[in-house]
Amino acid sequence: MDYGSVLEEIHTTVQPALGIGKVADYIPELARVSPHHFGMAIVTVRGEVYSVGDALTGFSIQSISKLFALVLALQAEGDAVWQRVGREPSGTPFNSLVQLENESGRPRNPFINAGALVITDILCTRFAVPENALAEFLQKLTGRSAIHYDRRVERSERTHADRNAAMAHFMRSFGNLRNPVELVLDAYCRHCAIEMNCVDLARAVAFLANHGRIPSNGETVLGASLAKRLNALMLTCGTYDSAGDFAFRVGLPAKSGVGGGIVAVMPNECGICVWSPSLDESGNSHAGTLALELLTTLTGRSIF
Amino acid sequence: MDYGSVLEEIHTTVQPALGIGKVADYIPELARVSPHHFGMAIVTVRGEVYSVGDALTGFSIQSISKLFALVLALQAEGDAVWQRVGREPSGTPFNSLVQLENESGRPRNPFINAGALVITDILCTRFAVPENALAEFLQKLTGRSAIHYDRRVERSERTHADRNAAMAHFMRSFGNLRNPVELVLDAYCRHCAIEMNCVDLARAVAFLANHGRIPSNGETVLGASLAKRLNALMLTCGTYDSAGDFAFRVGLPAKSGVGGGIVAVMPNECGICVWSPSLDESGNSHAGTLALELLTTLTGRSIF
Amino acid sequence: MDYGSVLEEIHTTVQPALGIGKVADYIPELARVSPHHFGMAIVTVRGEVYSVGDALTGFSIQSISKLFALVLALQAEGDAVWQRVGREPSGTPFNSLVQLENESGRPRNPFINAGALVITDILCTRFAVPENALAEFLQKLTGRSAIHYDRRVERSERTHADRNAAMAHFMRSFGNLRNPVELVLDAYCRHCAIEMNCVDLARAVAFLANHGRIPSNGETVLGASLAKRLNALMLTCGTYDSAGDFAFRVGLPAKSGVGGGIVAVMPNECGICVWSPSLDESGNSHAGTLALELLTTLTGRSIF
Amino acid sequence: MDYGSVLEEIHTTVQPALGIGKVADYIPELARVSPHHFGMAIVTVRGEVYSVGDALTGFSIQSISKLFALVLALQAEGDAVWQRVGREPSGTPFNSLVQLENESGRPRNPFINAGALVITDILCTRFAVPENALAEFLQKLTGRSAIHYDRRVERSERTHADRNAAMAHFMRSFGNLRNPVELVLDAYCRHCAIEMNCVDLARAVAFLANHGRIPSNGETVLGASLAKRLNALMLTCGTYDSAGDFAFRVGLPAKSGVGGGIVAVMPNECGICVWSPSLDESGNSHAGTLALELLTTLTGRSIF
Repeated sequence: MDYGSVLEEIHTTVQPALGIGKVADYIPELARVSPHHFGMAIVTVRGEVYSVGDALTGFSIQSISKLFALVLALQAEGDAVWQRVGREPSGTPFNSLVQLENESGRPRNPFINAGALVITDILCTRFAVPENALAEFLQKLTGRSAIHYDRRVERSERTHADRNAAMAHFMRSFGNLRNPVELVLDAYCRHCAIEMNCVDLARAVAFLANHGRIPSNGETVLGASLAKRLNALMLTCGTYDSAGDFAFRVGLPAKSGVGGGIVAVMPNECGICVWSPSLDESGNSHAGTLALELLTTLTGRSIF
Repeated sequence: MDYGSVLEEIHTTVQPALGIGKVADYIPELARVSPHHFGMAIVTVRGEVYSVGDALTGFSIQSISKLFALVLALQAEGDAVWQRVGREPSGTPFNSLVQLENESGRPRNPFINAGALVITDILCTRFAVPENALAEFLQKLTGRSAIHYDRRVERSERTHADRNAAMAHFMRSFGNLRNPVELVLDAYCRHCAIEMNCVDLARAVAFLANHGRIPSNGETVLGASLAKRLNALMLTCGTYDSAGDFAFRVGLPAKSGVGGGIVAVMPNECGICVWSPSLDESGNSHAGTLALELLTTLTGRSIF
Repeated sequence: MDYGSVLEEIHTTVQPALGIGKVADYIPELARVSPHHFGMAIVTVRGEVYSVGDALTGFSIQSISKLFALVLALQAEGDAVWQRVGREPSGTPFNSLVQLENESGRPRNPFINAGALVITDILCTRFAVPENALAEFLQKLTGRSAIHYDRRVERSERTHADRNAAMAHFMRSFGNLRNPVELVLDAYCRHCAIEMNCVDLARAVAFLANHGRIPSNGETVLGASLAKRLNALMLTCGTYDSAGDFAFRVGLPAKSGVGGGIVAVMPNECGICVWSPSLDESGNSHAGTLALELLTTLTGRSIF
Repeated sequence: MDYGSVLEEIHTTVQPALGIGKVADYIPELARVSPHHFGMAIVTVRGEVYSVGDALTGFSIQSISKLFALVLALQAEGDAVWQRVGREPSGTPFNSLVQLENESGRPRNPFINAGALVITDILCTRFAVPENALAEFLQKLTGRSAIHYDRRVERSERTHADRNAAMAHFMRSFGNLRNPVELVLDAYCRHCAIEMNCVDLARAVAFLANHGRIPSNGETVLGASLAKRLNALMLTCGTYDSAGDFAFRVGLPAKSGVGGGIVAVMPNECGICVWSPSLDESGNSHAGTLALELLTTLTGRSIF
C-alpha cells in the first residue's frame, strides 16, 4: 500500500473541512491554537513512517493520554483494573455524574473522565510520580529521549477542574478512589497536558497493531490477546458518546482528545495519528474523523 | 482453516458450561426449551458449511430478527432510516424508557426494542404484510423454500407485550411511530417468533462477511460499504448492554437473541451462528458467547 | 370576612394578567376557549356562596377530576390505595416515565397522570361504569341533578392519549394495572372531560374544609383525619411540579387542571374555585394562581 | 391548651418506639449516641415553655442548621437567594447529583445538601466567619449567651465530606458557587456540628409561628409574609424525600436533622422541637415523627 500518496490525497480532500466546528475553549491555552492545522502520520508494523502536513507539530494530547495511562495500569495490575472500572460504552457525555450515581461510583469505561481518574488513582498508588512514569513509558514507545507536558496547559486545566474534582470526590465517597483527590487531579491534569506530534503518537500506538510488540525493537508491551482487546475497547468506547457513529463511519479502533488529535489502529498493519484542532459536537476532531474515514475508503481497509 | 475440527473442539470444551445461567422465562414457550442444547454452524464466503451439535434444530430467533428487519428497512429507505433511529450504544437495558424520554422518542439504535419497533413501523408502511416480507427475505438469504414463525410463541409474546406497547405509544406521542401501535406490535411479535436453525442463520448472515453479496449466488443484498457499516453497528450495539464486554472478549460483530441464538460475522471469511438457550445476566447465551470466544482464540482470528 | 368585596377586588386586580400565558392546545377543544375568561367562587363551611366573573360558566375540569377520583377510591379501598401509589411530590413533569422506571411502576402520587391512571384502574375494578360513579359522586357533593362530560373533549383526549397509554402499559408490565389499558384510558379520558363551573367546584371541595362533611347537609364524605390528610397531599402534590412554589406563594392546598381551573381549600373556612384558561409554564392557570395569592394576602389567611 | 399534659402523654406513648430504626452512623461521633433518648419542647407565641424527657440534653442539630442558615441568607440577600436555589421538593435523595446535572447546577431547594451549600456560599461571601454569624443569630433567637459547635463532630464531618465536596465542585463548575470549595465545606460542617437542646431549638423557631417576630422581645426576624412562606417551604421540602408523607401524617411545617432532632411550627401558636436519635429510612427521627403525629392528633390542631 502506498500510504504516502494516500496521505497526500487525504490532505487535499480535507482542505475545505479545516476550521469547521469549534476549537476547545474551556481553557485559554487550547483556544489559542489555529483551527486550520492538519497533520497525519502512519507508522506500519514494518517500521515505515509516512506523514503529511503538520505531522511534526506538537499539540496537547489531552484524552489520548487515557489510552497510555490504561496500558500502564494494565501492566501494573492486570485484570484487577476491571474491578474498579467497566468496559461498556457510557451512553452519556464523557463527564456525566448520573451514571456514577446509578452504578455506585464505578465508571463505565477507562476512556471517560471518571474512568481515567480511577486509572490515574491506580497509577498514583503504584508510582511515586505518575506523570514521570507515563512520560517514560511514552519515551519507550516512541524511542524519543524526552516527553514533555505543557505547564501552562496543566495549570489552566487544574484551575478549571471543578467537574473532574466533583467526579473524583464522588467516586471517593463510594470508596473507588484511594488517594487524596488533589493528588489524583494533579497527575490527571499533567497527563492531559502532555505535548506530542502525529508521528510520535502513530509510533506510540503501533504496538496495538503488532500483537502488543513495539515494531522497532520487538519489545512486548502487552500480550497479543490483551492488545487485541484494547483495540476492541477503543472501538466501543474511544470516541466519547459518538463511538457507535465513529465505528459506523470509520471502522477503526481509535481514541480522540479535545486537543484535536485522534490515534487509530489498523490491526496487523499500522498505527495512525491525525490532528486538526476544530471539534465536532461530540468533541472529536472534525477534519480528523473525516481523514480517517477517507483512509478506510481509499485503502478499502477497515476491521469490518 | 479446518473449521470442522475447530467446531468439534469448541463443542467438547463448552460441555461444562451448558445449562449455566437461565433460560428466558418471560413467556412459557421459551421457558420450556432444554438449557442443554448446543449447536453451532459456520458458512464461509466460499460456500462451505460446517456444523456441530444441534445445528439443525430450530429455535426462536427473537432479537436476531432485528438484524434482518433493519437490512430490509435499509434496502427500502436507505439513509433516511437514521433520521428516526440512532447508531449509538444505549448504555441502558434494552427495554428502558428513560433514554427515550431524554432524547425525544428517538431510540439509540435499531437493535434495542424501541429501535426495532421503529424499524418495524417503517416495514409496516412499506409492506402490506411485513412478516411475510421478512420471511421472503430470509428465504432468499438462506435458499430455503419456507421460513415459519411459531404461532404459540407469537401469541404468547403478544400477550406479554406491555412494555413494548409502552415504548411504542411513547414514541408515537413524539411522532416517531406512524402506524397504529397494535399493527406494529403484531408484526414485531411475529418477527421475534420466527424459528430457524444454526445452519440457516449462518447462511443468512454470510453476505455481511462477503461485501454484501450472498455467497451461493453472488446476489447483492447491500452495497459493500453499507455491509461493513452494519458489522460496525453489530459490534457496538448488537449484544444488549454488554456490547463493550462482548467486543472485548469475542471481538466479532454479532447479534444475539433471548432464544439463545447469536449470529456473528468474520469479515471476508464467514457467517457464524451458535445456539444454547441458557442466558447470562445481560441476556446473551452463556455457552454461545463462550463458544465464540473460543472460536477467535483457536483460530487466532478476530477483527482486532 | 366579606368575601364578596374581596372577590370584587381580586377580579379588578387580575384584569391585566388575563391572557398572559398560553391556553392548553394539545387538543383542539381546549385550544378554542377564550384566554380572557375569569371566574371565582367561594363556598363557606356555613353554606354561604360568593362568586365573581364567569363563575357560572362551565369548563373542562381536566386534572381536578383526579382529586374526586381519589376520594372515591379511598372510600372504596381505604389505606390499601397507598400500596399502589405513593404520597410524595414527583419532582418531575406530570407525565414523566423516568420515575416509574426507577420505582418499579409505582407512581409517586395520585395527582400525576400515572397515579391517576392507577386510581382509575381501582375504580374500574370497583364500578361497572366508573365515569357514572364519579358523576354521581359529584352530584352528591354539589347537590346538582346532573354532571356531564363533554363528548368531543373526551374523544379528542382519547385520540391524543399515546403518552398516557405508554404509562398505563408500562405500569401494567410491572403488575400495577389490573384492567385492560383500553378500559382504563376510556374512563380516565371521560373523567378529564367532565364540565363544571366555579360555584359547583367550590361546593364540591367544601367538605375538605369542613372535617370531611358536606356543609349543606352534614353528610360525611371522609373522616376528619383523612380529610385533613388529603389537604396535605394537595399542598405537596396538587399543582404539578410547581407545588413548592405554589405553596410558597399561595399557601393553600389546591388541585389544578389544564382547563384553567384550580380548586383550593381554606381549612375550617371554605372551598374555593378559580378559573382562567391561560396557563403558566407549569400548567397552572396564570391568573388563577395570582387570584389565590391575592386571596390569602387580602384576607391575611393561609394555612401557614 | 394544656401542653404539659399533652407532652406527658406523648412521652408515655412513644416509649415502645424508642430505638426502632437506626442511629446515623456515617460518622462515629453520631453513632455513639444512645438510640433511647427522647426529649420534646414547646414554646408558645405567648412565651410559655413546656418540655418533657431529655429536652435539656444537647444534641447535634445537623440539617436543622439549614433552616437558620437560610433565614440568615434571606435577611442578607432577600429574594436574590432564589436565583441560585429553587423552592421545589427534590423528589430524590438529599445528596443526589442527578438533579443538579439535569438542572445546570441549581439545587431544587435550600434544605437538601446541595442547596444548603449554596446558602453557605452566600454566607461565606457576606460574613468573614459565617459559623460565628450563625452562632450569634442563634443566640439572638434563643436568648442564650453562647452557642457552640462540637469540634470532634465537625472534624469528623469534614473528613467524610466527599459527597458534599462532589456537589460543591459540581455546582462550582456551573458557576453556582463563588467561594473556594474548602472554605464553604468548612463553614457547612461547622453549621452541622452545632449542639443545642430541644428547649432552645423550640425557642429558636418560635418566631416562625409568630409572624416573624421573636416572642420574648417582639424583635422582627423576618416580615410576616416571608415567615409564612418559610413555613410553606418547610412543609414541602423540610423532611428529605418523605416530605409528602410527613405532611400527610403530621401536617406541620418541619425541618429534621440526622442527629435525630426535628423542629416544627404550629402557626400562630408555638415552636416545637423533638429529639430521638433513631432514624427511619428517610433519615427522619422515627420516634420524633411519631411524637409530632401524636401532637396533632391529641390537640386536634394541624395546619390542615
